[in-house]
Amino acid sequence: MHPKPTYAIAVHGGAGTPPPTMMSAERVAACHAGLARALAAGRDILAAGGSALDAVTEAVAALEDDPLFNAGRGAVFTAAGTHEMDAAIMDGNGRRAGAVAGICGPKNPVRAARAVMEHSPHVLLVGDGAMAFCREHGLEFAGPEYFFTEWRWRALKEAAAADDESRRHGTVGAVARDRAGNLAAATSTGGMTGKAPGRVGDSPIIGAGTYADNAACAVSATGHGEFFMRHAAAHEIAARMRHAGQTLAAAAGAVVEELRAAGGSGGVVAIDRDGRVALPFNSVGMYRGHAGSDGALYTAIFDEAYRRS
Amino acid sequence: MHPKPTYAIAVHGGAGTPPPTMMSAERVAACHAGLARALAAGRDILAAGGSALDAVTEAVAALEDDPLFNAGRGAVFTAAGTHEMDAAIMDGNGRRAGAVAGICGPKNPVRAARAVMEHSPHVLLVGDGAMAFCREHGLEFAGPEYFFTEWRWRALKEAAAADDESRRHGTVGAVARDRAGNLAAATSTGGMTGKAPGRVGDSPIIGAGTYADNAACAVSATGHGEFFMRHAAAHEIAARMRHAGQTLAAAAGAVVEELRAAGGSGGVVAIDRDGRVALPFNSVGMYRGHAGSDGALYTAIFDEAYRRS
Repeated sequence: MHPKPTYAIAVHGGAGTPPPTMMSAERVAACHAGLARALAAGRDILAAGGSALDAVTEAVAALEDDPLFNAGRGAVFTAAGTHEMDAAIMDGNGRRAGAVAGICGPKNPVRAARAVMEHSPHVLLVGDGAMAFCREHGLEFAGPEYFFTEWRWRALKEAAAADDESRRHGTVGAVARDRAGNLAAATSTGGMTGKAPGRVGDSPIIGAGTYADNAACAVSATGHGEFFMRHAAAHEIAARMRHAGQTLAAAAGAVVEELRAAGGSGGVVAIDRDGRVALPFNSVGMYRGHAGSDGALYTAIFDEAYRRS
Repeated sequence: MHPKPTYAIAVHGGAGTPPPTMMSAERVAACHAGLARALAAGRDILAAGGSALDAVTEAVAALEDDPLFNAGRGAVFTAAGTHEMDAAIMDGNGRRAGAVAGICGPKNPVRAARAVMEHSPHVLLVGDGAMAFCREHGLEFAGPEYFFTEWRWRALKEAAAADDESRRHGTVGAVARDRAGNLAAATSTGGMTGKAPGRVGDSPIIGAGTYADNAACAVSATGHGEFFMRHAAAHEIAARMRHAGQTLAAAAGAVVEELRAAGGSGGVVAIDRDGRVALPFNSVGMYRGHAGSDGALYTAIFDEAYRRS
């Protein structure tokens, strides 16, 4: 008899939290609920024998649909008052990957990234070329009103004035291990409020913000993207496991600490071949959660015990 | 007494060579001469005590100015009949990096990448946002006539018809180690003839086509970019040196072999802290060369002895 196959998923909703004292109980509850919804979407797929790839796609899509998180519907505004969204997905089985950057229109950028992976010979499409590809492949589009609500615009203006890190940037992501032992990772972001048009961060960069390799681990990152790019952070975690024999927890922890020492705030969610998860961060908080074969959902925002639901 | 400080530089002009029998003696001579000019530009800077960063900038700019190579002036045409150029540069000292993608106008994309590294808080700028940044920072622009000549257009049309890999894609790049022991890498490309608009390959992706870290090595890649992205090839070479204790030659050779096994043709030029160079490739040929403290220039195209000049 083989041991019972297991599955696991971890998600994040960004490392840019406000200080604990600045979050209302209502907002804390809403964030836990949003993370739990995303985890449940992925867990249900994995529990039914679905793929890690489908699980991270649906978990990230759920976070994109939630206006609380900076991706998809909740994407922040650029300096030009527009939205520019980036996303990536990677299949640890064969290291297939797809990514889009600088798009605005597709309702779920993670599905655009997946279409690039599955239906193009390329890994990364940007801007108008990426938009044309999304139209050709029948992705669901949403109008500006979907990505814009009065209260979010006001909140963002106030956030910019108050230099509220929590609303200036953010990312969502997921990693999963399915019953077949395959790993996958996906990341999606609306970028940074007021960022220079054309800036692409780490989220859609394979090896920086997103990486998956069945031989090591799957990783989705969040934080100050430029540091994750210069350190090739997601790939570095996999490389430490493969070449230095480090555990997932040791490798992910070392890279997040190295980023902290370099001045790069943020964190990662990561999962290894055995379904072990690591969710280290060097920031005040990181919206995060994980779920596994026991069926329960565990969510946390700050350095605190996970809430079980 | 410390041993005499040394310097070294290596360059490539792409892995997409035709078979040896398909290249005229004139073209072979012109390619050797182009590589030698680029090497000399970098070597002279290093010999005078200049930085690795300046050496790779000027070596790549020389290759961009040469219409024989697919970067800058010699950039190939997209499916839409336009040019889209990408470039990246990385300083091994502090792992600073800058990159641009999907630009057309700046005469030397490598200088645009360097401006991003030095004058923006970002690592990667794409499309219109990157173009606006280049204008603001006074980069030299060239008109369409600079990037277009009748004979190249005709040659490219014929190349497309003949499915001539050598003219369908290509890249240029350089790595260097200066007397102070600093490493740097730079890569520039005009992409693939007939590629989908918006496709970004490995050249401007830090960790994929370009990487430099004084703790390990500097790498510039050329070849089928999607494979280099999915393998985070340039960073993987550095990771093997740092975490598995491999030599530069062993690490670079292993990664190029791994890419071959996965179906990804191409190669890299790489240099370590001691100025040792490795120029492995798994394709028919790779335009390449290196130079060091002895002052001589060594160039090669196929699996052959280097020409000394």
